[in-house]
Amino acid sequence: MSNNKPALHTCLSPALLHLYEVSNSIVVIIDVLRATSTIATALYNGAKAVIPVDSVAKCIEIGRQIEGITAGERDGLIAEGLTYGNSPFEYPREFVAGKMLVLTTTNGTRLLHMALEKGAKEIITGSFPNLSAVCDHLAAANQHVILGCAAWRDKVNIEDMLFAGAVISRIKKHFNVNCDSSHIAETIYDKAKKDLFGFMKKNDASHYHRLMNYNLEKDIRYCLAEDGANVLPLYEEGKLLLK
Amino acid sequence: MSNNKPALHTCLSPALLHLYEVSNSIVVIIDVLRATSTIATALYNGAKAVIPVDSVAKCIEIGRQIEGITAGERDGLIAEGLTYGNSPFEYPREFVAGKMLVLTTTNGTRLLHMALEKGAKEIITGSFPNLSAVCDHLAAANQHVILGCAAWRDKVNIEDMLFAGAVISRIKKHFNVNCDSSHIAETIYDKAKKDLFGFMKKNDASHYHRLMNYNLEKDIRYCLAEDGANVLPLYEEGKLLLK
Repeated sequence: MSNNKPALHTCLSPALLHLYEVSNSIVVIIDVLRATSTIATALYNGAKAVIPVDSVAKCIEIGRQIEGITAGERDGLIAEGLTYGNSPFEYPREFVAGKMLVLTTTNGTRLLHMALEKGAKEIITGSFPNLSAVCDHLAAANQHVILGCAAWRDKVNIEDMLFAGAVISRIKKHFNVNCDSSHIAETIYDKAKKDLFGFMKKNDASHYHRLMNYNLEKDIRYCLAEDGANVLPLYEEGKLLLK
Repeated sequence: MSNNKPALHTCLSPALLHLYEVSNSIVVIIDVLRATSTIATALYNGAKAVIPVDSVAKCIEIGRQIEGITAGERDGLIAEGLTYGNSPFEYPREFVAGKMLVLTTTNGTRLLHMALEKGAKEIITGSFPNLSAVCDHLAAANQHVILGCAAWRDKVNIEDMLFAGAVISRIKKHFNVNCDSSHIAETIYDKAKKDLFGFMKKNDASHYHRLMNYNLEKDIRYCLAEDGANVLPLYEEGKLLLK
């Protein structure tokens, strides 16, 4: 019976998170461009851990304490006072292996801390580079799931919805999906999946524009490609670690 | 130049309304199932005005004062203490012509009052039964527009997004549409437009289920059909009147 399956919901903006039962769910933090893609990449390339923090000041302070790499962006550019940005290409194995990364971003790290405050049962991060790892974990977990889109300053965005749709299309048979946002996400993904980059371009996605203006097409293409860094970042005691 | 065009945004939930510049915009209140469909229908059938109120108590009080019809629903059923519900079929010409309708609903009237409090430049109501009237008005107005989806208890729903997409597909050339939610709505509408009822059914829309459980398929089909009550309800001094 479908009634015995756990529930899956998609939360399209942090400003809607209070509508969902966070405390009995696995929350997947989704910030496709680029926080969660970069987190997967850094861990895949051997980073010891990624410490997500919600302010630049905290990033600098913790970075100093643990001798970590201070990284992050505000509005898509390296934040003032930090050494590195939010591009996955800044974290190749030869640079990041064995190091701690302290990361602050406009939307993704903020949503993670919101889920934490609301008592999420488990927090993982999801992006196209680690799509399969996320799906395999959720399909096996037998727990309620909230796909949490980081959005852009609380406004719904296309790319996080596309990732939610990709997850749903792969694992929906394991869940009760009684959630219009999830059905919308799956429909959009189904329409876009043959060419995600082209879909972002054609639909004039706001984040596509923002990053193209910084000559970051390479980042966008990497962040929309499946399984380039197929690991599962799990949040434990202040850190994202490999499960 | 596209830069001279006014902006169009889609707000997918009342809980996101604070992200948009309501005070310099026309706000279209969208509550397809069924508040705004019923408002258009009652006015089309000759109601003198529809007074949207945000509580059952206020509905009863005002209804008594003006000798109006007290109507409304909570969770899809006639609210206790009110005489009529939220179905467009309750308001044929022979019943409603010349009368005042005092209406309270779960989502639509609440969003209207939020837009009012935030100082919207103009408030109109939109639904498939008055799609063309809404589009003609917006295309001619040369004002910024917010398509405000009433949603369901702040959760994004399919049918209000479909209506937003229908509006966008018809009038986008008159606007700058720099808004991912609008592009998503248009994509969903484009996918669904050949058979809106079938799309709602196939995608297991939560509101589709809720109303089908009350044997209201006829209501759903009417509320998804274009231009059955093609008038423009405009909010003025506490009342929705024909423009």
